[in-house]
Amino acid sequence: MHVTADDFFKAAELDKPRNTKGKVGSNVTLINVMQLAGLNTLGISLARIDYAPLGENPPHTHPRGTEILTVLEGTLYVGFVTSNPNNTLLAKVLNKGDVFVFPEGLIHFQFNPVHDMPAVALAALSSQNPGAITIANAVFGSKPPISDDVLAKAFQVEKGTIDWLQAQFWENNHN
Amino acid sequence: MHVTADDFFKAAELDKPRNTKGKVGSNVTLINVMQLAGLNTLGISLARIDYAPLGENPPHTHPRGTEILTVLEGTLYVGFVTSNPNNTLLAKVLNKGDVFVFPEGLIHFQFNPVHDMPAVALAALSSQNPGAITIANAVFGSKPPISDDVLAKAFQVEKGTIDWLQAQFWENNHN
Amino acid sequence: MHVTADDFFKAAELDKPRNTKGKVGSNVTLINVMQLAGLNTLGISLARIDYAPLGENPPHTHPRGTEILTVLEGTLYVGFVTSNPNNTLLAKVLNKGDVFVFPEGLIHFQFNPVHDMPAVALAALSSQNPGAITIANAVFGSKPPISDDVLAKAFQVEKGTIDWLQAQFWENNHN
Amino acid sequence: MHVTADDFFKAAELDKPRNTKGKVGSNVTLINVMQLAGLNTLGISLARIDYAPLGENPPHTHPRGTEILTVLEGTLYVGFVTSNPNNTLLAKVLNKGDVFVFPEGLIHFQFNPVHDMPAVALAALSSQNPGAITIANAVFGSKPPISDDVLAKAFQVEKGTIDWLQAQFWENNHN
Amino acid sequence: MHVTADDFFKAAELDKPRNTKGKVGSNVTLINVMQLAGLNTLGISLARIDYAPLGENPPHTHPRGTEILTVLEGTLYVGFVTSNPNNTLLAKVLNKGDVFVFPEGLIHFQFNPVHDMPAVALAALSSQNPGAITIANAVFGSKPPISDDVLAKAFQVEKGTIDWLQAQFWENNHN
Amino acid sequence: MHVTADDFFKAAELDKPRNTKGKVGSNVTLINVMQLAGLNTLGISLARIDYAPLGENPPHTHPRGTEILTVLEGTLYVGFVTSNPNNTLLAKVLNKGDVFVFPEGLIHFQFNPVHDMPAVALAALSSQNPGAITIANAVFGSKPPISDDVLAKAFQVEKGTIDWLQAQFWENNHN
Repeated sequence: MHVTADDFFKAAELDKPRNTKGKVGSNVTLINVMQLAGLNTLGISLARIDYAPLGENPPHTHPRGTEILTVLEGTLYVGFVTSNPNNTLLAKVLNKGDVFVFPEGLIHFQFNPVHDMPAVALAALSSQNPGAITIANAVFGSKPPISDDVLAKAFQVEKGTIDWLQAQFWENNHN
Repeated sequence: MHVTADDFFKAAELDKPRNTKGKVGSNVTLINVMQLAGLNTLGISLARIDYAPLGENPPHTHPRGTEILTVLEGTLYVGFVTSNPNNTLLAKVLNKGDVFVFPEGLIHFQFNPVHDMPAVALAALSSQNPGAITIANAVFGSKPPISDDVLAKAFQVEKGTIDWLQAQFWENNHN
Repeated sequence: MHVTADDFFKAAELDKPRNTKGKVGSNVTLINVMQLAGLNTLGISLARIDYAPLGENPPHTHPRGTEILTVLEGTLYVGFVTSNPNNTLLAKVLNKGDVFVFPEGLIHFQFNPVHDMPAVALAALSSQNPGAITIANAVFGSKPPISDDVLAKAFQVEKGTIDWLQAQFWENNHN
Repeated sequence: MHVTADDFFKAAELDKPRNTKGKVGSNVTLINVMQLAGLNTLGISLARIDYAPLGENPPHTHPRGTEILTVLEGTLYVGFVTSNPNNTLLAKVLNKGDVFVFPEGLIHFQFNPVHDMPAVALAALSSQNPGAITIANAVFGSKPPISDDVLAKAFQVEKGTIDWLQAQFWENNHN
Repeated sequence: MHVTADDFFKAAELDKPRNTKGKVGSNVTLINVMQLAGLNTLGISLARIDYAPLGENPPHTHPRGTEILTVLEGTLYVGFVTSNPNNTLLAKVLNKGDVFVFPEGLIHFQFNPVHDMPAVALAALSSQNPGAITIANAVFGSKPPISDDVLAKAFQVEKGTIDWLQAQFWENNHN
Repeated sequence: MHVTADDFFKAAELDKPRNTKGKVGSNVTLINVMQLAGLNTLGISLARIDYAPLGENPPHTHPRGTEILTVLEGTLYVGFVTSNPNNTLLAKVLNKGDVFVFPEGLIHFQFNPVHDMPAVALAALSSQNPGAITIANAVFGSKPPISDDVLAKAFQVEKGTIDWLQAQFWENNHN
């Protein structure tokens, strides 16, 4: 097999702002092994995340990776929740140049608390294919839907509330 | 260090039904490295799960382990949701003796669809400390709470709905 | 590739007693990646073991996995032997609901000491393909046989004894 | 912590013949992390094995390592047995300079088939602490002994034969 | 142990230019487990690299990690050399937003080819403690020095040349 | 797939002296997974190294493996250099039968300091494909060459010196 530098390269334009006009107001551009074949077996990937003013990367997990993030532009309120039984929220306001770690598999989020300025982060993940599970989308927007019996009991609400949630348009913040 | 057979043993009474009177109607009894020191470094743990009639083990993830489950008594409707962007629900009704796999880090659940019979499952996990994150509890019951700004946007509901959810009593289905 | 719930499911009938009429009086029903393709890369497998009265799962090893076991029915006398130079036997009588761990690669066994009751165990292993090596079968029943010079010296017996052992019918307790 | 070259060094005299007057006629000199602290976390160890004329390194396993071996002096008949259900013996006569692999956890042996010449091998193992289990010793020489009920059924012999075997003096071929 | 958000946070000022006045004209600011304890066991770290005009991060390896890099400011000529026997140089000019991968353990470099503009990169590594070995420094600036007999033969030069190289002041481009 | 003993065997003639007439005066004969298919996934390989009088295995790294070495014949002066920032040389003179460890990814060498006697070592590596990077060859003999701007600054010499080094014939000491 003939390998060239292009197998380890991606013209990713990670310096360019991305569209954040979606409902949650963020956009994740992930460079993983599907975009960059040279990452195969190497256990790492890289992402740029754009946040609109008051936009967020909503609560999600990476089933196969830890994330380390730094703020390139703006301010972010970030946090993760520890596993059962404590479910402690560890959260922090990050300014430009700060670094934060989201341990593998834990639910975490980033929120731009500023109403008139976008924010940008760069994040790396400890897998060439870390995966991402946006909690609200996976729970209420799965195809087919999870039974409303299951979700009503899990979330302690009426089935009508679940049905209404499942009827929303759940869009993905990865283009 | 003097090691004895008791370091590899746990009188766990996994044959005994557990209390399933909590809100979700299930009870997980996990034997991990905290209960059984001999599991250290060995990458496996074992659990019994009891389900009341119409009880469930609500949507949750294991951040550090795959789960393989078999039904000992009754019937279970089980499923997991694949990661973004598809969020496909793969679900199945399991009868006694059937086996199902929940891959590492994915959101999954088990529900007893029978209104007059309990169910029991035995499950093994591929870590001596797999962790568990009950989605509703971690998202709406964290201490301190996640900002309702973050959750309202993530779940596409009013902040009042989030506040109401956060005011519920979120109990853990592990004794 | 189109994946469905059936890729993660096995109608294994692990609730049903298996035939234990073989010489050793036990029967192992293992669900590994050959039976359940969805286990691929996930590092776990599950087995039911049936024991006749006074039956046993004879001394064996799993070359690629630790085993955690619980007793579903009856009583088991179980043990493993530590590696050289001590070769300490760590053994225990297990009753229903008890849990025991057999660390990766060590020689271990389970024996039903009761003359009038069968026993049943459920065991999980920390590999999707842990392998099993029944010591007596591998040593005396290999095809072709190991040289009786080698075995006579190893077991400190006459070659005739080895030849006699090698002439037995070595059956496998996995159907 | 101050580290010096001596932490990565062992004056092991692996060039010197060792005493092979024991019952099995072999002697294993293993340099693992207990002898050479610098091996910690590095996943490898090294051994010299001496064989008397007609001596052997009797059937054994390494629970945590693969072995690669080359013959320094003499001739060796070597083999390993594959796992259940086939238990195929893969064996070969090795001359000076030949290389053979014994996969992790499988039962294997080396035998010097020459009646008037010693043999010497050098072997490496894929763990800083691979462990070794000499099958005959672990099965018949454990302390305390495995129940003769268990062993008689496993080896298809009378209990008296087991008791006689357990009464032998089981010596370890590692000094 | 009481864990707080600060254990997963580092006020790293990765947005601020660093001093690049050293001989090689670059400066690496690495956030690994020594700076950020929460990275322990999580297998990832993050670095900012500043390059003066015509500055470089000279040929080096990371003994325990793959590196993925993106250009934040300016232009970089980057490359790595494959292992023996081919020693192929795979190189590329990267502009802002481009991504490149340096596989674990391979010799690689980044060079700012622009004479009047600095450059900045952000890089992630697949270990919480990847290590770095600057080739010239480790070979010619070790303490004590490697014998000039060894180096003269390796580099095909006179011993006087080696002695002269070893007499240079070898500074590290990590502050 | 039908597997035979030959898949785990290599008639390697590791007992025979190899040609050491090359510039560096050494010759590495490596048995890895390309020579011996049975090593696949097993994480180990084996090498014989011949050294002419005053010959050396010049400074090199193994990007994917730790090395453990013993001297079969003669004397070796061996060493490795720790990573940045200390770059400490840990070195030792080894006699026949001594053992030394070179941790994964670190620059190391072996030199035969005796002017009238060859030396021979046997080394094992903790990967079925550890790779080797001879520093001088990879830095000055890559194809195409690394820019002399980059190397002149890295090694603190004139570009003319780099050009002269790059014009040498860089031969590999593996046949």
